[in-house]
Amino acid sequence: MYDGASAKMRAFSIGVDLGGTNLRIAALTPAGERLETIALPTRLKAGPQAVMDDMAGACRQLIEKYGSQGELLGVGVGSPGPLELPLGVLHHPPNLPGFDGLNLRGELERRLRRPVQVDSDANLAAYGEFLLGAGCTYASRSLIMLTLGTGVGAGIILDGAIWHGMQGAAGESGHGPLDPAGPACPCGARGCLEMYASATAIVRRAHELGIGEKDPAGNGTGAALSASAVARLAEAGDTRALQVFDEVGRALGLSLAHLINALDLPLYVVGGGAAAAWPLFAPRMFATVQEMSYVYRMSMPRDPGVFEAGKTHIAPAQLGSDAGLLGAALLPIHAPVPAATQRPG
Amino acid sequence: MYDGASAKMRAFSIGVDLGGTNLRIAALTPAGERLETIALPTRLKAGPQAVMDDMAGACRQLIEKYGSQGELLGVGVGSPGPLELPLGVLHHPPNLPGFDGLNLRGELERRLRRPVQVDSDANLAAYGEFLLGAGCTYASRSLIMLTLGTGVGAGIILDGAIWHGMQGAAGESGHGPLDPAGPACPCGARGCLEMYASATAIVRRAHELGIGEKDPAGNGTGAALSASAVARLAEAGDTRALQVFDEVGRALGLSLAHLINALDLPLYVVGGGAAAAWPLFAPRMFATVQEMSYVYRMSMPRDPGVFEAGKTHIAPAQLGSDAGLLGAALLPIHAPVPAATQRPG
Repeated sequence: MYDGASAKMRAFSIGVDLGGTNLRIAALTPAGERLETIALPTRLKAGPQAVMDDMAGACRQLIEKYGSQGELLGVGVGSPGPLELPLGVLHHPPNLPGFDGLNLRGELERRLRRPVQVDSDANLAAYGEFLLGAGCTYASRSLIMLTLGTGVGAGIILDGAIWHGMQGAAGESGHGPLDPAGPACPCGARGCLEMYASATAIVRRAHELGIGEKDPAGNGTGAALSASAVARLAEAGDTRALQVFDEVGRALGLSLAHLINALDLPLYVVGGGAAAAWPLFAPRMFATVQEMSYVYRMSMPRDPGVFEAGKTHIAPAQLGSDAGLLGAALLPIHAPVPAATQRPG
Repeated sequence: MYDGASAKMRAFSIGVDLGGTNLRIAALTPAGERLETIALPTRLKAGPQAVMDDMAGACRQLIEKYGSQGELLGVGVGSPGPLELPLGVLHHPPNLPGFDGLNLRGELERRLRRPVQVDSDANLAAYGEFLLGAGCTYASRSLIMLTLGTGVGAGIILDGAIWHGMQGAAGESGHGPLDPAGPACPCGARGCLEMYASATAIVRRAHELGIGEKDPAGNGTGAALSASAVARLAEAGDTRALQVFDEVGRALGLSLAHLINALDLPLYVVGGGAAAAWPLFAPRMFATVQEMSYVYRMSMPRDPGVFEAGKTHIAPAQLGSDAGLLGAALLPIHAPVPAATQRPG
């Protein structure tokens, strides 16, 4: 994809989005204009060194192509966690089997012979939405973005900077306990947000409610159910499927009430694949936040979809699956690491 | 109380702790050494102007006494909320009846003819503990302090600064919903932390469990029960009273799990009058956090009472009821408001 590079001199940065299925590498101008995106499969079976070679190769390709037109401002990489920061070492990442112990940052720095910044995909998605998406629309210097995917991740931006916490573990709000008697979560707790609002939870609840004997197109029995299939059923008026998304909204509302009461931020963003079902879960989500957070009631906008200064907004993400890629590219521009703290690999 | 002023020149600041019962004014050195404390009753019945006169009079008394020895660095005031910040205007404060609409900051600035900084008592208690209490012991630049009193307040310090949120409403974690089917809270929600862990909740639960027909000394029936009386019963082995504090610990553990998973701070402090019952609720609190927060489990100290770098500590407050007063005095020293944003009354 070649989307708009002009021949004039311009600085650029490179962002990498490493996922369990796809590996994407993009060149971006400081203003957020995309110059080019390279999309590759993540060759998990070939092992981490092969994936790092693919990543470095695509970076080099972009550096060669755009380096003649302007300065490379930096390289940012987003990865699923757990990720030890700022070191950039992966620890038993469930979505990147075989990558345990990989020094993602060091391996890419060694290949590119230049500094690289690494952060979690959830943090960079929040950073992307902050700089180019909902954060612009709602004029917010601080936000929390919940990403509804296989699990529920969260990224926190406070006063324009990613909040990492002491050990880089901030943003684990997907594991906030909403019902200590609820379903057991792989994290060891019970009734976490993730057990109600992830794509995985949507499918599990649909099965529990007896959905899934047929897929939505009626193509026989036993078809693997997906969250979007449950959403299509709900859109078609299936009451059990509607109940599933009502429960998603309820869980999101309770978690948002905790976050709003604690931090009083101007903006909360809901993204990730399952967030496409926004019209299905938003009514219950807003009703629950209104019921459970007096801080929200103090600062409710008249219309949640219209920006109003000084109000608390809860909004769908705007950048779709590009948020993390764009956030990764913008990180070295907007939050460069001081040279003294860089540890080239 | 005259506690250690020497005759040599030294700068000082003044802190004010305005409570519903007591009004305390202290002069402090920048190092946190207390020069003098003036303690007065809060003359609620005489009205806000009389209380402001008392406050200003005590400030003037300290300024006259210590102003000859060194520069007055600033005046900080802590007040119960809700408080509009940075303006310093009270809005229907439940613990200061008759004070609605009072411009606390403007009224004191007018009387003293110099700038004053105002913040909430919960924020300043956290700030005091941060600078002179648990924050020192646990070497933490960030912390959350939960204050268990009539309600449950919270103050948040992030990277050395009070986190106010968009509308000054951050730190309302006392109203985080732990059980949407739980008891109705005056805030409008149900099952908030405050409904389990405040002194009020301790007394309510004790009554519900049939405690209170006799006071702990056995002095007849119908005596008004206090949280500390319930604590004495628990210390004496009363199983119902022990259950009350077990529920306090459970609720604190759930709230802490939410906060730890969201923010990954190095330190959480539990203070306020009811925190004196720490030995009664701490075991269940720690067990619940351990069960419900994998972020905590990742970074548990070997002994929660002993500082260990890089670990998540949960600790009792160290400054008792002085935390807010000391925090108020230190605010203008450590977080002075730039002159341009001062609005003298």
